[in-house]
Amino acid sequence: QHSSPVSTIVVWDEPFFQGKRHEFTTDCYSTPERGFSTVRSFRIESGAWVGFEHCGFQGQQFVLERGEYPCWEAWSGSNAYHVDRMSSFRPITCAEHGRSQLLLFEQENFQGRRGELSDDCPSLPELGWGGSAVGSFLVCSGAWVCSQYPGYRGFQYLLESDSHAGEYKHVREWGSHAQTGQVQSIRRVQQ
Amino acid sequence: QHSSPVSTIVVWDEPFFQGKRHEFTTDCYSTPERGFSTVRSFRIESGAWVGFEHCGFQGQQFVLERGEYPCWEAWSGSNAYHVDRMSSFRPITCAEHGRSQLLLFEQENFQGRRGELSDDCPSLPELGWGGSAVGSFLVCSGAWVCSQYPGYRGFQYLLESDSHAGEYKHVREWGSHAQTGQVQSIRRVQQ
Repeated sequence: QHSSPVSTIVVWDEPFFQGKRHEFTTDCYSTPERGFSTVRSFRIESGAWVGFEHCGFQGQQFVLERGEYPCWEAWSGSNAYHVDRMSSFRPITCAEHGRSQLLLFEQENFQGRRGELSDDCPSLPELGWGGSAVGSFLVCSGAWVCSQYPGYRGFQYLLESDSHAGEYKHVREWGSHAQTGQVQSIRRVQQ
Repeated sequence: QHSSPVSTIVVWDEPFFQGKRHEFTTDCYSTPERGFSTVRSFRIESGAWVGFEHCGFQGQQFVLERGEYPCWEAWSGSNAYHVDRMSSFRPITCAEHGRSQLLLFEQENFQGRRGELSDDCPSLPELGWGGSAVGSFLVCSGAWVCSQYPGYRGFQYLLESDSHAGEYKHVREWGSHAQTGQVQSIRRVQQ
């Protein structure tokens, strides 16, 4: 495991990098407590980050890699589940890209048929993973993001070897907001 | 270049695979003309497909890989640009996964700094591609999907070696709906 020497996110309270600006290099538990009632645009300057709908790293998750996010409304979520704002965020610790490894299981608690990934997969069904639900994950190395739909779209959930000891035994453990075990694409988080 | 022996998409006019059902193995120029005023759920059984907002393969694009799409509202687009329906779709011809190659250029008409990709890239800025705009693309092999934001989110645009002779000289040529040249992630389309 390694992380960049410094992870940096710059946030603004207005779209297109306007208004009040602040730079963070560590966890932000609550943007309101840091003087941002809302974050409407941001730029990831280094590292990979995960943003959350609610304070305290709760609610819908957004994996954020290096680049520009000028307009929260244009970026966030889907029409079916509107997320108003990002209220907390923290850096992600990734593995070296070639050393990521993930086990997935058909049933909860590491039971049933087992699959192994060491590369990005835009379609689990294409890989022969029947059905569209995953029961549990074991993250051997690195940080991964799994998504509800093929092509890395829809709800997304972060899976980290550094969190939960890499053990995600039940759908409840990979996202308090998870309404379904439907997972159809998975990829490594890059930094 | 190769495509699956058969590409198959099954569509329904109600969410969660309910209501009227039809199976397509070739281009659908207009879903209304095929008796579907709306397509609200679908399943890609084989091949990769691209769906379009409007009839005649116009408007916002959605790359669709093998898997289940139970709810159009939950899947499509962003809050900033609502797409009501998918009104046309066609199969995508992909390359063998290891043989895809793409050139990107800083300026239109293949001018300026040049980059080359043969693998998926969730963050062009991370790769050292300065700024967040691409001026032009030359697709040497395969089919690629580029996205407005890192992590394959936001507006997406299909780039194919079999279309336009692989030449995308200007932002207008990779999507009639493109409002910006902002491209921050690119990956191969898988089938």
